[in-house]
Amino acid sequence: MKVADIGGEFELIKRISKETKLFSDDVFVGIGDDTAVLKFDRDRYLLFTTDMMVEDDHFSLEWSNAEQIGMKAIEVNVSDIAAMGGLPRHALISLALPKDVDVEFIEGLYKGLNKTGKRYKINIIGGDITHSKQIVINVAMLGFAEKKNLCLRRDAKVNDVICVSGDLGGSTAGLNLLRRKKKGKSIKFHLEPKARLGFSGKIAEYVNAMEDVSDGFGQEIRNICDASKKGAVIYKEKIPLSKAAVDDAKKVNKDVYDYALYGGEDFELVFTINKKNIALLKKKIKDKIYVVGRILDKKQGIYILDKNKKIKLEKGFDHFEK
Amino acid sequence: MKVADIGGEFELIKRISKETKLFSDDVFVGIGDDTAVLKFDRDRYLLFTTDMMVEDDHFSLEWSNAEQIGMKAIEVNVSDIAAMGGLPRHALISLALPKDVDVEFIEGLYKGLNKTGKRYKINIIGGDITHSKQIVINVAMLGFAEKKNLCLRRDAKVNDVICVSGDLGGSTAGLNLLRRKKKGKSIKFHLEPKARLGFSGKIAEYVNAMEDVSDGFGQEIRNICDASKKGAVIYKEKIPLSKAAVDDAKKVNKDVYDYALYGGEDFELVFTINKKNIALLKKKIKDKIYVVGRILDKKQGIYILDKNKKIKLEKGFDHFEK
Repeated sequence: MKVADIGGEFELIKRISKETKLFSDDVFVGIGDDTAVLKFDRDRYLLFTTDMMVEDDHFSLEWSNAEQIGMKAIEVNVSDIAAMGGLPRHALISLALPKDVDVEFIEGLYKGLNKTGKRYKINIIGGDITHSKQIVINVAMLGFAEKKNLCLRRDAKVNDVICVSGDLGGSTAGLNLLRRKKKGKSIKFHLEPKARLGFSGKIAEYVNAMEDVSDGFGQEIRNICDASKKGAVIYKEKIPLSKAAVDDAKKVNKDVYDYALYGGEDFELVFTINKKNIALLKKKIKDKIYVVGRILDKKQGIYILDKNKKIKLEKGFDHFEK
Repeated sequence: MKVADIGGEFELIKRISKETKLFSDDVFVGIGDDTAVLKFDRDRYLLFTTDMMVEDDHFSLEWSNAEQIGMKAIEVNVSDIAAMGGLPRHALISLALPKDVDVEFIEGLYKGLNKTGKRYKINIIGGDITHSKQIVINVAMLGFAEKKNLCLRRDAKVNDVICVSGDLGGSTAGLNLLRRKKKGKSIKFHLEPKARLGFSGKIAEYVNAMEDVSDGFGQEIRNICDASKKGAVIYKEKIPLSKAAVDDAKKVNKDVYDYALYGGEDFELVFTINKKNIALLKKKIKDKIYVVGRILDKKQGIYILDKNKKIKLEKGFDHFEK
């Protein structure tokens, strides 16, 4: 039986999770959020996360240089910690590299890792190095969240407004240009994504549920709704589109809303928040906040409203799709 | 320039380590030991480690089943934590799998991960799943060490005796049989290695420096000497040899001492300890302790004594060797 036959990657994770057991009482949240959450001290939780990037799946040497790959490996983990309302602190790097890899490539990779590590003040304190046919880079990261700031998937409330931290669709627009050897401004969103850590720090205290857009905006909404046992409506015309994505989607005859809804790797934050808090936040911070929908009762389901027409929310990116 | 041209994997790690910086004061030990060591509370350190296993490098589907691969992925990380004098607590699993992988294989892998996790009471609390050409499995693990138990590479003292927790050479003997499609008792040491966690807990308080035998006994001695700025003498005839390794080395015309000294993946513990403590320990615990050498002043170098003949200690296994 293949992964696609049981309903894909997300069903697989559900199956696996069922079998795992806990042996101590210091796990606050295990499988099923952007990071694991461990009890630490009176005021803080310890966040523990990992992300693996594989050549020709998450990056390609055709268009990414070593430094960009290193930068991205750190950013994607920082983004997970930002999605919990935390701050990153320590990282371990595992590298699998072809035997004939150039030392210059490895040094470039570490230049990127160190550069982004420095940007977020992350201590790179170890790792593992081995060999493989494809380049694989795994980062394991620890961070901290003040208890009052912790944002879990499962905490969305009915009537929360659903917000996004910025424009969507850029990363996938860029990838689609790269694959077709075309040029455009969206390419940099794919090659050098940035986590929204600073923004997370400003809003976390006021937010109910939060996720980063790694598997696609639609999938993140679905994750929040599943974990919170809620429904949601998304107003299509309110989805903030990256201008570069709009321009670059046209070049390849794609629908920019497909990029924005299902594309993934935008690393913006999607969050749900009480209406009162959104008003308060909009006075308090200068950053743009885009209201794109509302949390509903579970029985109302999850859907997109295109003017007055209900549209089904499709599934996000699946690494094991046929 | 290739990795072999700059002196191999260990030189590469030295180069990389030089460029990394620390941004907070909660790192007690960074790159350069079996795990990173972080300040935790008054009595304990937090241990943070990671290990990556790649198909056809660390395991082969020709002779390992999914469950054994999962078990080994946990054991190798537990072994690193045992080498610090700690106890494992939490793990994250990153998997990269071919697109057409069978669900049964993934379930087998998780059966192994969960089985060994249960054995050591480790909480598997998340991870990442993606696709690749070869199977790659990365485990990131957290553990704790009582401050009085922490064993670092750098703490070997002149005149410490060098000890090993058990027989060496089994894993490499098994691998050499498997590669030649032969049979023998050493095979199980390669397919189902076991970390010496219980033993570590009994001795850690009395030990100065400790390492697990992952890259080969000779390399671990070199690591301890380098980090402690010391020399060492190993008495060849005192090295405990796995009986299965002795038998199975003969079958393929190999020198069993090559397996024991340079083979790797035995996951026994190598440690240095004050003479007084070894006497005390031998009274206190029933487990066998093998005294195999002595820590010397740095200027005396590192060497093996074969009866009265000095032999050079060669280098251990290098993933990037030409």
